[in-house]
Amino acid sequence: MMKHTLFTPGPTNVPPEVLAALGRPIVHHRAPDFDPVFKTAREGLQYVFRTRNPVVPLTSSGTGGMEAAVTSLLSPGDKAIAIEGGKFGERWGQICKAFGINCVIEKIDWSTSATPELIEKLLRQHPDAKAVLTTHCETSTGALTDIEGIAKVVAGTGAVLVTDAVSSLGAEPLETDKWGVDVVVTGSQKALMLPPGMAFVSVSPKAEAMIQSAKSACYYFSLKKALKSLAENTTPWTGPVSMIVALNAAIELIRKTGLEKIWERHTRCATAIRQGCAALGLPLFSKSPSNVVVALTMPEGVDASKLVKTMRDTFGMTITGGQEHLKGKIIRIAALGFVEEFDVLALIGALEMALLRQGCACEAGSGVGAALKSLNTTMSI
Amino acid sequence: MMKHTLFTPGPTNVPPEVLAALGRPIVHHRAPDFDPVFKTAREGLQYVFRTRNPVVPLTSSGTGGMEAAVTSLLSPGDKAIAIEGGKFGERWGQICKAFGINCVIEKIDWSTSATPELIEKLLRQHPDAKAVLTTHCETSTGALTDIEGIAKVVAGTGAVLVTDAVSSLGAEPLETDKWGVDVVVTGSQKALMLPPGMAFVSVSPKAEAMIQSAKSACYYFSLKKALKSLAENTTPWTGPVSMIVALNAAIELIRKTGLEKIWERHTRCATAIRQGCAALGLPLFSKSPSNVVVALTMPEGVDASKLVKTMRDTFGMTITGGQEHLKGKIIRIAALGFVEEFDVLALIGALEMALLRQGCACEAGSGVGAALKSLNTTMSI
Repeated sequence: MMKHTLFTPGPTNVPPEVLAALGRPIVHHRAPDFDPVFKTAREGLQYVFRTRNPVVPLTSSGTGGMEAAVTSLLSPGDKAIAIEGGKFGERWGQICKAFGINCVIEKIDWSTSATPELIEKLLRQHPDAKAVLTTHCETSTGALTDIEGIAKVVAGTGAVLVTDAVSSLGAEPLETDKWGVDVVVTGSQKALMLPPGMAFVSVSPKAEAMIQSAKSACYYFSLKKALKSLAENTTPWTGPVSMIVALNAAIELIRKTGLEKIWERHTRCATAIRQGCAALGLPLFSKSPSNVVVALTMPEGVDASKLVKTMRDTFGMTITGGQEHLKGKIIRIAALGFVEEFDVLALIGALEMALLRQGCACEAGSGVGAALKSLNTTMSI
Repeated sequence: MMKHTLFTPGPTNVPPEVLAALGRPIVHHRAPDFDPVFKTAREGLQYVFRTRNPVVPLTSSGTGGMEAAVTSLLSPGDKAIAIEGGKFGERWGQICKAFGINCVIEKIDWSTSATPELIEKLLRQHPDAKAVLTTHCETSTGALTDIEGIAKVVAGTGAVLVTDAVSSLGAEPLETDKWGVDVVVTGSQKALMLPPGMAFVSVSPKAEAMIQSAKSACYYFSLKKALKSLAENTTPWTGPVSMIVALNAAIELIRKTGLEKIWERHTRCATAIRQGCAALGLPLFSKSPSNVVVALTMPEGVDASKLVKTMRDTFGMTITGGQEHLKGKIIRIAALGFVEEFDVLALIGALEMALLRQGCACEAGSGVGAALKSLNTTMSI
């Protein structure tokens, strides 16, 4: 018997209350008993999205939510701007290409994130762009993008701002309405503490107007259809009833703590991870680090895949390595969703021990010591 | 406290063992512990699909599986033939239209189903058709199509045979390989006894060859990408790990009984429903009735929506009414998935009582009597 904890940027640990909700008997999605369940889900999603706009639930992974945004907003030949600072920024460009959207892809160093100034420049160069496709937290690099600043720049233009917040929503502050983000996409298996299987997409009035006239090839992922059904408190296709029941259980837990407090906890946990890792000689990979996932550059002599394996197989803690060209070069650690401060201590302790077993020169106790020092100053108790 | 049972053609009742599996802690989809889970799922799907071909799991409703088939097989301008004998046959045409496929839509009376002769005639008229899009059980009408016969007709042509078996797979005999059905689509929430949230698509070598050269706009639903990942025992996007764990639990239950025995049980239950309803004066709607869902024409003086309401609210049994132009004209009853013979007796008893409460002239006990008589001859005990 070993206790298993996910310190991954999705899927994340699901609280027992939510797992229990998943196991409830099936409610028929077109029967009246489901009506209040779905209404609660719609309101709960608005709460976590910080929006009064409709939030469309989709049966898909986060990528499906991204495809829904692109194909529902744009028509073939339309121009969009996407920032490629990692694997998920890259995905915007790939989706656009698949559907004939003319996507201006701005490649930036994967250790950085897009700035409002960069977006401003791109919009000046491409005043005909109809959408700016951004990534709030780039899960592959741990970089956070200043969506608030970018929203200010996009607001004055005819373009809509679309943000992939698949890993960040519920973990990092994201003020959909206050900042004016037109379309926010997220997934179930991150800070929302559900299993993978659903995506959620918020739609501003500016985006909705664009959706009404867009002509891309789409059917299942049509946000036009979904918004029409949503107004009738339903979904165009059979919805994942068990997941929606569990979503309500998860959002109830989030509401009990309060979204702001949860954002603070993610900051506190990520800060402690960063401090602990700094003490262990693991430098941060990203120059604009998020609190969703911490990416750490592997020093000479540390075998990243062995580290991930020891953490998982010996200590029961799942962390992840790098993707694409970052494979073997970084590790990624997330205290995302149902993870708390003392779990982070356990994590840093295990990481420290795994590094010591690889012959690292760190002093035993220095990592957990630094993490505790950080938590001691940031925890308000 | 009321016992609730779904007699609907999806979502269906989920067995406690499967509900419990849904509630297990989350396994990371890219960690090695998930490899054997996914391998078991792939093999289990081949068992229920009666195929040695790959079966692609998708995070979507059944409609997503249909879209995956159309967009992965065909290119804009390609010709396809679809039979529209109900709401789901209609859907093939709608998906084709959304993606620029030239779909020849053959409308047939909704109380009938397509015959091999009709398909043969259509293929003669359209020898350039690249796909024949069929519906095994048309859930909106209860009609069953002779896929075995149609497969013989399609086999000698360049077209692939695609079958929507969303509601039928696992309930009606469907011999994917023996009959030679190129692409079979099903959903999780029917005879597979899972909640809604997944679709599954089998792909024959003939279909796979077509997929390699197809050029429709698709990304998330690309079967080309999915088949490539499947060969590496994974999915292109984050898979719904909890559902896959539950799928294995469900298929384990199916294997214990044996698929053929489950087909027989569906036949036995549907026959008992038909006999019971005949005794109650409810004629069958479809001329080629399936064992997946029984559609019954409402006699003069019977209020269909009141009947559905009494069944659900007073007796805890969910049945469904008609869709589109059949609203108010038919009711649909399914003993699909996790429903057994004696549940059918309870169902017919409740239906009988509800009809008596509406002043129907049926003799009390005649419905259950007829159902028991049917079961008495068909149950081998």
